[in-house]
Amino acid sequence: MCVKWLPLMDAPLDISAPWVQKSAPARKLRDDSVAQVQPALSGLPDVLPQNSQRLLREVLTAREFELTENYTANELLAKLQSRELSSEELTRAFLRRAALAHAATNCLTELQWDDAIERAKYLDSLPEPIGPLHGLPISTKEHQGTKGRNKTTNASYVAYDAGCVFFARTTQPQAIMHLETVSNIYGRTTNPYNNTLTPGGSSGGESALIGIRGSLLGLGGDIGGSIRVPAAHCGIYGLKPSDQRLPLSGAAGHMFGKETILATNGPMSTDRDSLSLFMKVVLDAQPWRLEPALKVAPWIPYRFTRPLKIAVQWTDCVVQPHPPMIRALREVSEACKASGHTIVEWNCGKLNHQKGWELLESLFYPDGGKYVRDLMKQAGEPILPLTKWIMEQVHVKDLTMHELWKACSEREAYRMMYAKAWSATADEDGQEVDVILCPPNFGAATPHKQSKYWGYSSIWNLLDYPGVVFPVTTVDPAKDPKDAMYKPRNAEDEFVYHLYDPATFKDAPVGLQVIGRRHCDEKVMAALELIENAMGRK
Amino acid sequence: MCVKWLPLMDAPLDISAPWVQKSAPARKLRDDSVAQVQPALSGLPDVLPQNSQRLLREVLTAREFELTENYTANELLAKLQSRELSSEELTRAFLRRAALAHAATNCLTELQWDDAIERAKYLDSLPEPIGPLHGLPISTKEHQGTKGRNKTTNASYVAYDAGCVFFARTTQPQAIMHLETVSNIYGRTTNPYNNTLTPGGSSGGESALIGIRGSLLGLGGDIGGSIRVPAAHCGIYGLKPSDQRLPLSGAAGHMFGKETILATNGPMSTDRDSLSLFMKVVLDAQPWRLEPALKVAPWIPYRFTRPLKIAVQWTDCVVQPHPPMIRALREVSEACKASGHTIVEWNCGKLNHQKGWELLESLFYPDGGKYVRDLMKQAGEPILPLTKWIMEQVHVKDLTMHELWKACSEREAYRMMYAKAWSATADEDGQEVDVILCPPNFGAATPHKQSKYWGYSSIWNLLDYPGVVFPVTTVDPAKDPKDAMYKPRNAEDEFVYHLYDPATFKDAPVGLQVIGRRHCDEKVMAALELIENAMGRK
Repeated sequence: MCVKWLPLMDAPLDISAPWVQKSAPARKLRDDSVAQVQPALSGLPDVLPQNSQRLLREVLTAREFELTENYTANELLAKLQSRELSSEELTRAFLRRAALAHAATNCLTELQWDDAIERAKYLDSLPEPIGPLHGLPISTKEHQGTKGRNKTTNASYVAYDAGCVFFARTTQPQAIMHLETVSNIYGRTTNPYNNTLTPGGSSGGESALIGIRGSLLGLGGDIGGSIRVPAAHCGIYGLKPSDQRLPLSGAAGHMFGKETILATNGPMSTDRDSLSLFMKVVLDAQPWRLEPALKVAPWIPYRFTRPLKIAVQWTDCVVQPHPPMIRALREVSEACKASGHTIVEWNCGKLNHQKGWELLESLFYPDGGKYVRDLMKQAGEPILPLTKWIMEQVHVKDLTMHELWKACSEREAYRMMYAKAWSATADEDGQEVDVILCPPNFGAATPHKQSKYWGYSSIWNLLDYPGVVFPVTTVDPAKDPKDAMYKPRNAEDEFVYHLYDPATFKDAPVGLQVIGRRHCDEKVMAALELIENAMGRK
Repeated sequence: MCVKWLPLMDAPLDISAPWVQKSAPARKLRDDSVAQVQPALSGLPDVLPQNSQRLLREVLTAREFELTENYTANELLAKLQSRELSSEELTRAFLRRAALAHAATNCLTELQWDDAIERAKYLDSLPEPIGPLHGLPISTKEHQGTKGRNKTTNASYVAYDAGCVFFARTTQPQAIMHLETVSNIYGRTTNPYNNTLTPGGSSGGESALIGIRGSLLGLGGDIGGSIRVPAAHCGIYGLKPSDQRLPLSGAAGHMFGKETILATNGPMSTDRDSLSLFMKVVLDAQPWRLEPALKVAPWIPYRFTRPLKIAVQWTDCVVQPHPPMIRALREVSEACKASGHTIVEWNCGKLNHQKGWELLESLFYPDGGKYVRDLMKQAGEPILPLTKWIMEQVHVKDLTMHELWKACSEREAYRMMYAKAWSATADEDGQEVDVILCPPNFGAATPHKQSKYWGYSSIWNLLDYPGVVFPVTTVDPAKDPKDAMYKPRNAEDEFVYHLYDPATFKDAPVGLQVIGRRHCDEKVMAALELIENAMGRK
């Protein structure tokens, strides 16, 4: 056996168990692939520091560090197009940084060493760039697949045709339905800023990798927060577009044909512009011509011609956000106000996010979780605690056909109620709220095994509203003391309240979320630009 | 009791049956409303002629005839806007023509005499027109509802706000799932060109009414052909847009929350431009702001800058179209060719429309028809033969949740296969087929009780492709002899083959269907304009 112990799991592997045997080749592939890194990683301490960012200068060469640390994807693409930089040199630098990220956080399922270098050399050999992503290394969450690797999503095909170099595949949790990243096959992935915390999930391999700049641009997926929560937890950007905007077909996964709540792919990156770049490249290829479930809609950048009207959601009235999240909201909304934008409150009291979550429970698993349980039983694989937790929510139920119709009707009624509330924001001054600024999660990256409230991210999946997450600050014990006076509203709120202690969240990034109305993906990105401008960023 | 015998039903009403008692008020409302017409209809013969069009000059005044016969909706709107014509005069003319249409075809569930005249007077009293439909009488299929009548659809609200006058509600079949129009409440609706034939269904009250110009513009609905088949059978225009383009909410109906195949509303009219006008008026109101299931997409007219590439579907390779349909295809495609458009063949052989129909059977009734049967049982209402027929198709089955997921996956796979075939039409010459020209039904209006093959219309519901029907010709015994040599492929084909005899279809209109790719609704309307130009029409 190639692995005797999976990182950070509760129990050692029972090597005699059939599922361990069955999954051994996957671990071997992963370990062998990471071992290919040249030159081998050296300078790693025996005991890893809590904050992995400290390892970079010890292990990488100065040139590798410079190439992977100092530029945005767009800047690198310009250098690649002008041939100032070869794709091979850049790819080798990111391969080594990704290997280091993996050593620190256990974020990879495969380092595509040979293929990536071969692809980079091929691209370098061409007389002209073949597309807008020419030569850029891109990472993908495992279930997305990449050219030549098991199944391949249409989104990956398009990025490939645009000239990218797939170089790393990243971890995802069991059944792809945790806001953490842990599986019986690969163990647990940790946060690159603090290894006692989760990088989030389900796209937590991506967020850990991109959070340490082991990749600048990756492809994740989101059905309840799986792009936005890991992006927030690792201090990066992540976009969940509206459903049926980006191609999905070809993804490995489960419950195909379940349409009660749809998953969507989306980009994750170290910078904002790369998100729009990815959307534009994929939608320029008119993916709806092959995948007819997609909306026929090219990516058309939006420009605001007046200040924003931003609604700030301070709480969802179910679970109170932790102090650093409230501070982030305050800092950003004050900066926006100072720049001339209008700030109003998004009052969730009447909008019943609790009801929204109850609907989601039943829409996530309209078969009561039977399909997933059967799959695990068949494989003989133990069900992990967070898998069990989500499938055992009160409203998860094996629905009859007519109960299913009722649930879908209730979902539509909820969406209609929310749409009316949003439209009503124009009643007073004639200007409708442009975006909602809100927490992507109750707090910064959660300690392992504790990610048990999804409401701040998943409500926007229920509504199919596009959302983008951006980094704002980090937890600061001096500024973010615990509110000793707070009285929790309910059991979940109490659980979340007791999780908070500034020391626990040392160095943890804090991100916020910008939400737009359905199909207003471009508007969300335009609003984020203005918000970041107000924060003094480019 | 107010009605002792429902038109053209197989058996007299059993007046003691509870469901007859329960539905009596609906019949009384209808009969009383029609009796309000002033002056009362006179000049009707004791025995109605087979072709109702002959009655018009006998019953209407010269002025009523002129107003209702000679203008398009746009021409009338211009006269209304300029105050050359009052809404009241126009509305009274259409009310009387609609009452005549009803006497001839049994197409109404209510003539909204008082409300319509009051509304028209109100509109006439205003200093300025209130919207683009100011003063125009509009009819609606019963389940759509209109302002002040039971439930009201958002589409009706928008038309109302744009200034229309709702004046007539029209019949629909039991369970709204026949391609004919017959119910235990109101009896059978007949074709205004030949009362031994159906006006089609389920929007057959609309098609009968509009087919005799008792209304110029009405609102129907389509889940398997329910706008397009009646439009074709009555010599009018009808547009089935892509799903989730027009508002649906507020419609009375059943199986809410069933999302396997969606119904869509759509306009039906005596002319082509009124279809686009209706779409523009409704989408200008941004209905997605209140009904978030809708696609965010205003109506943006499309302009072709080169000749069309039209694929002609001569047969669906399951059931052979009747000779008049083949002649219509030939005449239109030859006219298009003569005008410089490219004509290719749409070969359905590889596309397996039979499989498409089998998928539809299960997607129409994923509960095996249980919900509808229970409703009827509860009401004690007899199930009509065509209701029974559609629910007893081989693949109608009460699906388990996992069977449902499989069916939805198969639907998506079928859509993807079809999309690839369409995209591949660009392979040879770089120009993709713009539209498919095809029969909307196997033949002209079917004799009553025989509408048992839906494939020509329903395949486009499965694919969610927009389709518009337009009138082409009428059955001509001299030009459309039976093909005595034809050997049917299968039992359905044999049934359809034996239905044909030129004498049966005397005076019956023949329409054709223009189909576009998903979400290309505007392109379909633009193509129809070029096709009709090629036919020598405006």
